[in-house]
Amino acid sequence: MPDFFDKRIAMAHGAGGEATRRLVEGLFQPAFSNPQLDSLSDAAIIDPPAGRLAMTSDSFVVQPLRFPGGSIGELAVNGTVNDLAVSGARPLAMTATFVLEAGLSSEALRWEVTAMAEAARRAGVPIVGGDTKVVEHGKADGMYITTTGLGLVHPHADLGPQRIQTGDRVILSGPIGNHGMAIMLARAELEIEADIESDTRPLCELTARLFDTVGAAVHWMRDATRGGVATVLNELSRDADVRITISEESVPVDDCVRGACELLGLDPLHVANEGQFIAIIAADQAEAALAAMRSTPGGERACFLGEIERGPMSRVIARSAFGGQRIVDMLIGDPLPRIC
Amino acid sequence: MPDFFDKRIAMAHGAGGEATRRLVEGLFQPAFSNPQLDSLSDAAIIDPPAGRLAMTSDSFVVQPLRFPGGSIGELAVNGTVNDLAVSGARPLAMTATFVLEAGLSSEALRWEVTAMAEAARRAGVPIVGGDTKVVEHGKADGMYITTTGLGLVHPHADLGPQRIQTGDRVILSGPIGNHGMAIMLARAELEIEADIESDTRPLCELTARLFDTVGAAVHWMRDATRGGVATVLNELSRDADVRITISEESVPVDDCVRGACELLGLDPLHVANEGQFIAIIAADQAEAALAAMRSTPGGERACFLGEIERGPMSRVIARSAFGGQRIVDMLIGDPLPRIC
Repeated sequence: MPDFFDKRIAMAHGAGGEATRRLVEGLFQPAFSNPQLDSLSDAAIIDPPAGRLAMTSDSFVVQPLRFPGGSIGELAVNGTVNDLAVSGARPLAMTATFVLEAGLSSEALRWEVTAMAEAARRAGVPIVGGDTKVVEHGKADGMYITTTGLGLVHPHADLGPQRIQTGDRVILSGPIGNHGMAIMLARAELEIEADIESDTRPLCELTARLFDTVGAAVHWMRDATRGGVATVLNELSRDADVRITISEESVPVDDCVRGACELLGLDPLHVANEGQFIAIIAADQAEAALAAMRSTPGGERACFLGEIERGPMSRVIARSAFGGQRIVDMLIGDPLPRIC
Repeated sequence: MPDFFDKRIAMAHGAGGEATRRLVEGLFQPAFSNPQLDSLSDAAIIDPPAGRLAMTSDSFVVQPLRFPGGSIGELAVNGTVNDLAVSGARPLAMTATFVLEAGLSSEALRWEVTAMAEAARRAGVPIVGGDTKVVEHGKADGMYITTTGLGLVHPHADLGPQRIQTGDRVILSGPIGNHGMAIMLARAELEIEADIESDTRPLCELTARLFDTVGAAVHWMRDATRGGVATVLNELSRDADVRITISEESVPVDDCVRGACELLGLDPLHVANEGQFIAIIAADQAEAALAAMRSTPGGERACFLGEIERGPMSRVIARSAFGGQRIVDMLIGDPLPRIC
C-alpha cells in the first residue's frame, strides 16, 4: 500500500491530478478501505436492503480542530450517524469531503482521517466515497469536513411532529452542555480551568434499542446539537403546536459544566451537545422506553425531562422545584460560534 | 411563505437558532421546496425504487463564484448529477451544505440558491436536505458548497476498468477546455479577451441514452473534470493496464479555447470540463453508441477520440496526422487552481 509522504497540503493536492491521486491512495484509501471505496470510481455503488432510506448531510467547521474528548473528524462521523439515528435509521454508508487550507500539515490531516476511520468503525458504517479540495492559505481554517450518511429506516420508525400527543413524555439521553463547554475552554480565550470533555459519540445503538423496545410509541426524536436542548424543544413546540413543560431540576448537568456556564452567563439548555438526544414517547410506553435506554451502555443517565401539554401557548416552559416557571427561548445570536 | 430580509450573512445564521431558522425557512426552503425538504427533519426519508444505488459527494470552491456560463451553485448541482450519470445512475435525491463567510451579501447567496434550484429542476432531482455553517470573515472565500447525490443505477449498467477490452473505442461527448478557460479568463488576471463560456450542464440524459441504446456495451465512463481528458485517460490506462491511443486531430477544441490555451502554454487535454465525459464502448457497438449520442440534444459534437490497445506500455499516446506520437501525461501540479 503506498503511503503519503508529503509534509504539507499544497494546492496541487486538490487539482485532481497526480498529487490528488497520491493523497487519495496513500492516505484516505488505506484508512477507510472497503470494497466500494477501493473501486475509486465517481460514485459508490450500494445494494440497499429493502426499506425506506434516510439521507442527511452536515458540514463541520469546529475550532479548534482537536479538543478534549474529540476532534473535527470524529465529530463529522458521529454527527451524521446521529442525524440518521434520530431519524430512526441505522447507517449503511457515508461519504466525506474535505476543504483543506494550503499549508495544513499532513499530520493534522492524518490525525483526522484516523479519527474518522475509528469513529466509522465504532458506528459500523463504511466511508464509501469523498472528495478533496484545497484553497489558498488564509481561505479556510485548517480544514472543513462535510459528511453525508445514508441509512436504513427501522421498520417500526414513524416519526414526526404530527405524531405528538398531549401527555407524551420527554426523555433526554444524558447530561447536557459538555460539548459546548469543552470547545469554549479548549479555545483558551477564557481563564477557566475545568476537566470537561466533549460528549461526541454515536447514538445509533441507543435509538435502535428504543425502536426495538417500544416501536411506534417513539413519536419524535432529535439530537440536541447547535442551539442545545432549548432550541430543539422550541422547534418541536412550534412544529407540533404544543406546550412543552420541563422540570428545571431534572435537567442533568455535570457540576463542572454548570459552573462554567454560570461563569459565562450561559443557560446549559442553550449549549450544544454532540452525544445527546431528545425522544418524545407515548405516555403508556414511556417507563419502558426509559428502562430500555438506561439498560443500554451509554444510556445509564437517561431521564424524564418533562411532558407535552396543550395550550394556552405553544412554548417551552421550565418549572422550578419552588413552583416558579420561566419561558425557555430558542437560541438567539451565537454565543458559541463554530461549535461543530 | 416567510422571506429572508437580512442583508448580510452573520455568524448567528450558522448557530442553529432563530437566525438559522429564518435563513432556512426564508431562503432555502422556498427555493428548493419538495415534500422531503419541507419536513425540515434531521434526515430526508426516501422510498427508493428497487435496484442498485449510486452515492457521490463533491465540494465546490470555484473562484470567482460567478463566471461566464455558470456559477458555483449551478456547478455544485451539475457536478454531482454528472458523477451519478457517468456511474450509470439517474439522480433520485441530492443534499447541499454551505460553508458561508460572515459578511457575505445575502444577494450573493440568493443568486446561488436560485441557480441551484434551476439546475436541480433541469436535472430532475429534488434537493432534499442540507446544512449551513458560517465562519468568520477571512476564513472562507464567499462560500463553499458541498453536494451529495443519490441515484438509481440503470439496470444495464455494468462499468469498471475490468470490463475494458482491446479494440474498445473511446468516445468523447463534445469540445473540451471551455470550463477551465472560462474560469481563467473570468479571474481577469490575464489580458486575454475571448468569448468563452463554461460548459457546465447535466449529462444524465446523454448517458441514459447510451445505456438505453447499447446497454452493457458501455464498459467505462468518467466525466473529464479536474485534470481534464488527459488525467481521466491516464487513470483508466493505469487501472485497466491498457494502452490508449488517441488521434491528436480528432480532439474537438473550439478555436477561442485553443487560442487561449496556446497563449497560456496549456494543453487543452489537461484543462477541466464540467459538461463532457469519456465513454469506452465495445468495438461492435461503438458506431451505434456514437449515433445515439449525436442524435441526443447536447451530444451533436460527440466523436471518436481513440481506442484501447494492449502494451507494450500502459500509457496514453497521442498520434498526429503526420505520423508523430507523444505521451500524454496526467496533470502535474495545479496550473488552474480552484476550477470547481
